[in-house]
Amino acid sequence: MSIPTIKWVNNSVRIIDQRELPLKLKFIICKDIKTLWHAIKVLAVRGAPALGAAAAFGVLLGIKKIKTQDRKIFDKKFKELCAYIGSSRPTAVNLFNALEQMHNVLKAHPAADVARLRKLLYDEAMKIFNDDRKVCRRMGVNGDALIKNGMRVLTICNAGALATVDFGTALGVMYTAKQKGKKFKVFASETRPLLQGARLTAWELQKEGIDVTLICDNMAATLMAQKKIDMVLTGADRIAMNGDAANKIGTYSVAVLAKHHNIPFYLAAPETTFDKKTKTGKEIPIEERSGEEILSFAGKRVAPHGVKTYNPSFDVTPHALIAGIVTEKGIIRAPFAKNIKKCFAKKSH
Amino acid sequence: MSIPTIKWVNNSVRIIDQRELPLKLKFIICKDIKTLWHAIKVLAVRGAPALGAAAAFGVLLGIKKIKTQDRKIFDKKFKELCAYIGSSRPTAVNLFNALEQMHNVLKAHPAADVARLRKLLYDEAMKIFNDDRKVCRRMGVNGDALIKNGMRVLTICNAGALATVDFGTALGVMYTAKQKGKKFKVFASETRPLLQGARLTAWELQKEGIDVTLICDNMAATLMAQKKIDMVLTGADRIAMNGDAANKIGTYSVAVLAKHHNIPFYLAAPETTFDKKTKTGKEIPIEERSGEEILSFAGKRVAPHGVKTYNPSFDVTPHALIAGIVTEKGIIRAPFAKNIKKCFAKKSH
Repeated sequence: MSIPTIKWVNNSVRIIDQRELPLKLKFIICKDIKTLWHAIKVLAVRGAPALGAAAAFGVLLGIKKIKTQDRKIFDKKFKELCAYIGSSRPTAVNLFNALEQMHNVLKAHPAADVARLRKLLYDEAMKIFNDDRKVCRRMGVNGDALIKNGMRVLTICNAGALATVDFGTALGVMYTAKQKGKKFKVFASETRPLLQGARLTAWELQKEGIDVTLICDNMAATLMAQKKIDMVLTGADRIAMNGDAANKIGTYSVAVLAKHHNIPFYLAAPETTFDKKTKTGKEIPIEERSGEEILSFAGKRVAPHGVKTYNPSFDVTPHALIAGIVTEKGIIRAPFAKNIKKCFAKKSH
Repeated sequence: MSIPTIKWVNNSVRIIDQRELPLKLKFIICKDIKTLWHAIKVLAVRGAPALGAAAAFGVLLGIKKIKTQDRKIFDKKFKELCAYIGSSRPTAVNLFNALEQMHNVLKAHPAADVARLRKLLYDEAMKIFNDDRKVCRRMGVNGDALIKNGMRVLTICNAGALATVDFGTALGVMYTAKQKGKKFKVFASETRPLLQGARLTAWELQKEGIDVTLICDNMAATLMAQKKIDMVLTGADRIAMNGDAANKIGTYSVAVLAKHHNIPFYLAAPETTFDKKTKTGKEIPIEERSGEEILSFAGKRVAPHGVKTYNPSFDVTPHALIAGIVTEKGIIRAPFAKNIKKCFAKKSH
């Protein structure tokens, strides 16, 4: 997209308020970390890679308030700041990986004074921001071969420019295929409860001139039975080292349905979405959000008062259901545990 | 329910306006067939068995306007009336079966004068209405054994009192189990796009004191993976003679997911939901409704203007995914083609 989802502007973080899309394109200017924390919490900014950039920029916002010149005090307050940022959303690992990357700056420069550290942290945040832009484009190039002329691709939630700095993971692959002149159709699953598919993906694809059809989540199976889906391609929020992948709720459902109908199910995610500390999907923490997201729709109450809800924000797709994971270093296929290790042992090209 | 979904009152059809539930309990009084036709079209009244009663009462409304005493003219206008009623919704076969049952009155009394026919048609409509009440209670008794203490049951859409005259098919089974003192939990899938699960099923079950938890349609798979669902039990809109069953969109998805997780998938439906003219699910006409149902909600736009949609109102679950069909004459199991025939060859008890 021409307008980045998130950007460091005038010592502040400017984000597109995704809650207002597609009806309004509005921005939130976060001058302090509390404002950004809240924006993350309410999903004004969301999407695993975008949350990585948000965490890095969040550190820059936070350290503006750390006035000490004492390195020990700075380091202590820095850690508290990172813990605070990490408390916003538990599932997308890019957020934690970005915080760790920022923290590594402190570790790598034990003797640097605070003024120098500020500069180094700024550079690191910009690196995270710029890496996201590059990495998404590389994923696009690597995944492009999956999309053939005439294909019908199903996606869920939003793994587009709005989920990253400005290009997307799963949708980045589609944008690359489109740039190469390929013709294909996309079915966007609306993605209850917050409708990121309807509000964000349909909007992005339409703007980019890609043929998009919006469906409810419960219609995907019917399209598959009618042989109208050739591939599923989604993003991911955290991938374990065995290939199990957490993504927006509904993804696992689509993966099971794809398996039943013999349709390949692909993910697109950068290395920063892989959690090197997590062996299997069982260890991935799944955020549960307020039942209000289900009980009301577009501000209107739809369910009776007092009814219980269950509202997990993510689910985990076991690696056995995954045909491949598009990364900036190539497409990883089974056996995942072995090939994930191998893929990320490579040097960046 | 104490208040029937549909009733013949003062020469008119009184229906609960289900679009207003659960926030308001409002009625529509249909004094003419056009009003009722519209109420069916917009889903103010819905549910396969309820549509059977609506069609029968619709005939009573329609013949009020047929002023002739000439039997031939009456019969001709009667057929036009039935075609008009049949044009309201294509999928639920109860509607067509009720029309046929009403038409059979004409066929069975070729010599009856118009005045007598009016009386006979009135009696037949009341029979359809009363049969629904009896048949639902018999289904409840027959299906009750499926529900064991401590079970967690998933249902989709509304197959309750609101889908019938006053008791329900799938929910009727639950009401019977509840009356017998069994304790169980129900997960109600909200059922996009029109949220019959959130608006109607959650409301009905809560009123009846049954433990109900509302989920989005895309969350069922996660509950199944967590081993939190022991059985799926839904209604049906039309069942082919090989057991393939059309029901609200999303049902097929749940059936595939249930199969993958080794969870039995049951339907509850009266004989009037079986279509003796339809051999397999492929022959069942599937209503497609306006994309506006997906693009907007309660008057609020959620998707960008101009985006395409696909909005099938039903899907077909192949019999291979069905563990059994609860009917008023017992539970039908595989081989379905043989056992459906056998079951309905029996005399009513």
